Amino acid sequence: MASVSSMAARMTSLQLSAKEEMVEEFLDAAARGDLAQVSTLLSHVPSLINQTGNSGWTALMLAARNGHYYVVEALLSHGCDKFSVNSSSQTAYDIGKFWGHRHISDLLGRTDDSCQQVLPGSDLNQQENYFSRETLDRLSGKRTDKVWLEEKQSDPNTVYLLFSNLNPMVNSSQEDDDAKVETKLCRFRYEAVKDLLQKPATVLIFLGVEKRKKPSSSNSSQTVEGVLEPPAWFAIGTDEDAAELFKRCREKNCSFPKMPNRDLLKFSEEEAGIVAQARSVLSWHSRHSFCPTCGSSTKLEEGGYKRSCLNSDCRSLKGVHNTCYPRVDPVVIMLVIHPDGNQCLLGRKKIFPVGMFSCLAGFIEPGETIEEAVRREVEEESGVKVGPVQYVSCQPWPMPSNLMIGCLAVAISTDIKVDENEIEEARWFPRQQAIESLLRGASPAFTVPPRQTIAHQLIRHWVSMTSNL
Amino acid sequence: MASVSSMAARMTSLQLSAKEEMVEEFLDAAARGDLAQVSTLLSHVPSLINQTGNSGWTALMLAARNGHYYVVEALLSHGCDKFSVNSSSQTAYDIGKFWGHRHISDLLGRTDDSCQQVLPGSDLNQQENYFSRETLDRLSGKRTDKVWLEEKQSDPNTVYLLFSNLNPMVNSSQEDDDAKVETKLCRFRYEAVKDLLQKPATVLIFLGVEKRKKPSSSNSSQTVEGVLEPPAWFAIGTDEDAAELFKRCREKNCSFPKMPNRDLLKFSEEEAGIVAQARSVLSWHSRHSFCPTCGSSTKLEEGGYKRSCLNSDCRSLKGVHNTCYPRVDPVVIMLVIHPDGNQCLLGRKKIFPVGMFSCLAGFIEPGETIEEAVRREVEEESGVKVGPVQYVSCQPWPMPSNLMIGCLAVAISTDIKVDENEIEEARWFPRQQAIESLLRGASPAFTVPPRQTIAHQLIRHWVSMTSNL
Repeated sequence: MASVSSMAARMTSLQLSAKEEMVEEFLDAAARGDLAQVSTLLSHVPSLINQTGNSGWTALMLAARNGHYYVVEALLSHGCDKFSVNSSSQTAYDIGKFWGHRHISDLLGRTDDSCQQVLPGSDLNQQENYFSRETLDRLSGKRTDKVWLEEKQSDPNTVYLLFSNLNPMVNSSQEDDDAKVETKLCRFRYEAVKDLLQKPATVLIFLGVEKRKKPSSSNSSQTVEGVLEPPAWFAIGTDEDAAELFKRCREKNCSFPKMPNRDLLKFSEEEAGIVAQARSVLSWHSRHSFCPTCGSSTKLEEGGYKRSCLNSDCRSLKGVHNTCYPRVDPVVIMLVIHPDGNQCLLGRKKIFPVGMFSCLAGFIEPGETIEEAVRREVEEESGVKVGPVQYVSCQPWPMPSNLMIGCLAVAISTDIKVDENEIEEARWFPRQQAIESLLRGASPAFTVPPRQTIAHQLIRHWVSMTSNL
Repeated sequence: MASVSSMAARMTSLQLSAKEEMVEEFLDAAARGDLAQVSTLLSHVPSLINQTGNSGWTALMLAARNGHYYVVEALLSHGCDKFSVNSSSQTAYDIGKFWGHRHISDLLGRTDDSCQQVLPGSDLNQQENYFSRETLDRLSGKRTDKVWLEEKQSDPNTVYLLFSNLNPMVNSSQEDDDAKVETKLCRFRYEAVKDLLQKPATVLIFLGVEKRKKPSSSNSSQTVEGVLEPPAWFAIGTDEDAAELFKRCREKNCSFPKMPNRDLLKFSEEEAGIVAQARSVLSWHSRHSFCPTCGSSTKLEEGGYKRSCLNSDCRSLKGVHNTCYPRVDPVVIMLVIHPDGNQCLLGRKKIFPVGMFSCLAGFIEPGETIEEAVRREVEEESGVKVGPVQYVSCQPWPMPSNLMIGCLAVAISTDIKVDENEIEEARWFPRQQAIESLLRGASPAFTVPPRQTIAHQLIRHWVSMTSNL
């Protein structure tokens, strides 16, 4: 034992003096523009790269100060932190710019993938949840441009989706092999739906235009802005008979989902995002035909994104009021972790399939933060007290128009006392059981909600967060 | 140069072998329960503490496996990560429990401040924003308990707040010295307001009960649960004449704020949280007296947290619908950082005081995530494209009932093109100018919103996030 610890003691003092010496040498090399020495030192001791000398100056700042372009380039290629600041709050970019080394400030100011580094604690691989992908550019500024909207309505490239009772008309193709069902939105052109647009019960929503793909370098010169405008998309809510609506479509096997909570989870990621937007706005119209301020009828405006009261004396017409705009209900959904770090709290409602447990969740109340709502809901539903709360990701959930805000939370008490009005049962599950459920093992202790739910993704996030494998 | 780099080369190989040797020695000492050696090695090379050997076992796991209580205690006191797991997904707690070392699993399972460590990336000092503090326990389960609510209403300990035109009656005391005005809520007892409760135009909101303070150890035995129930709080919205209402109060200098956006920022943190809750719910009632589904009148229920349609045929009475519950509008508010890491994007509206700039912000739309809303709003308002987005903190904003979700975001383009319908001007400000504005320097380049706003706190968060001082 003595030999090891004395060796350790020797090393620590050796390390300190050697390190100081090396940092000085490294910064000096960068300041002098000695690319060879900078590279050699870095290859031996990579941790030198962000070391600072007097007044918090890094090698990058010194090289930028003295106009050493190739040293700056080498430091960047070794992954140095270009956003650190010296004691005068200057970055290397600021320094290079101030001293007139424009080729260096251009290099440092370049927009690239390193922008993630501006936010140190940021999650590089932000979870993308189902219903989250935005394939359309909403162009909300165009909603008030009646002329533009009318032109787009009759444009032969415009895409229409049909909704009946809040659900989109879809085409399902069953693949024989594995009974996997793929659901696709039925797309219509103006000619196939123009009669519907004239009917007073029809609700028309402007969803946006297809996002421009970055032009590939080979044909970018051929694409002229304005000539090839991307197609606009609209959603039509109609009360026409379903059988009549099916006749409008060229596809066979068309249907309207009967079980929205299940059937709406079968789209591609691209189409799911469009369904989330359209269904949320249509469900608002279906429940908000009257002015809540005075009870009068309302009319649809702004591409389906506003309902204005028809009573000219109504207060809702004076100033800007949320009563006129679609409602979004923020919900917290959280995976609560045991103070031992290795169990999670899940609950089940009576309506869940047998054996299924999920994350606790609840609506955020007026005057409440996300973190307080997590603590209140967990304690109300399960009796467990929660300390730290951490936001993970969120998911639009269009039944009818929720924004699910997904968090991890740490329990500071562990006794469970279930509120039976809210949930049937709540239990602590060990990490290993959660892993088996995610992997769909032979006989898991419980089943998790499908992968399209943020509850599933929160459990997956926790399981993968701390693994020493 | 040659001498330094050859020294570095020698050190790196020496470090590697020495380190492997030491990790093995360290783990072995923990497994054998050799407290002296564990401590000596740690004092020389602190980074040994979380090192792993075969199958991801740490020193803590080995000590827990073999029942070495004092080694476990020493490792914890040195700040080891007690939540890391081995390749069988077991923590040290699981291992100690499995092998029947109960004193060790008790020690490892203890709830303490280390619970923060369960979430590695979590911010230890989460910003508390104005309007965020919850001093009342909402007891939402009691809202449907009519008998309990009526008992509380006539309870002499119950506290009532009076609101007129959505603003609370306050008492302002001017301190002569520094002209600092402190605003306090006027508190009423049942006897002073019981006539108001009978009037049909009165809106009564149950806010909750005061949170129990942890009993101090000296008198905890004297406090019997149920005997000393904490006082309940209610908010009363009334349309009575203000002058008449002032007569009910024993205090002088009572008033109702005339400029809510300014005067509501003068409370203590405790009272601000209560105002946020009460004003948000009252503003919902003031604009939502009629059923948006059928236009009929509604009645107040559930302690002021529900409005039910009086038309018994209305769809809103079948199932659960958000039309019946208070509305909360989620808003994104973001500080956009330049790709150079040292400038931030701020904008100003025409209605802002001269010289003030603030963060960009906008409502989250149906079917949209927080991150997508940040990207859309920034591009719409300023023309700047945004890449990574990071949630920081949120703030209830009761004008009328917003939830401000505060984020940092990184720009991936820098040219500004302002949408003049939304904002008057947007500019990139260097970090140093932001620091001067926060410090209220002699002649700052711009002024920031007051400290009670989340915009102010986001700028402060960014400035303090990366400093090399």
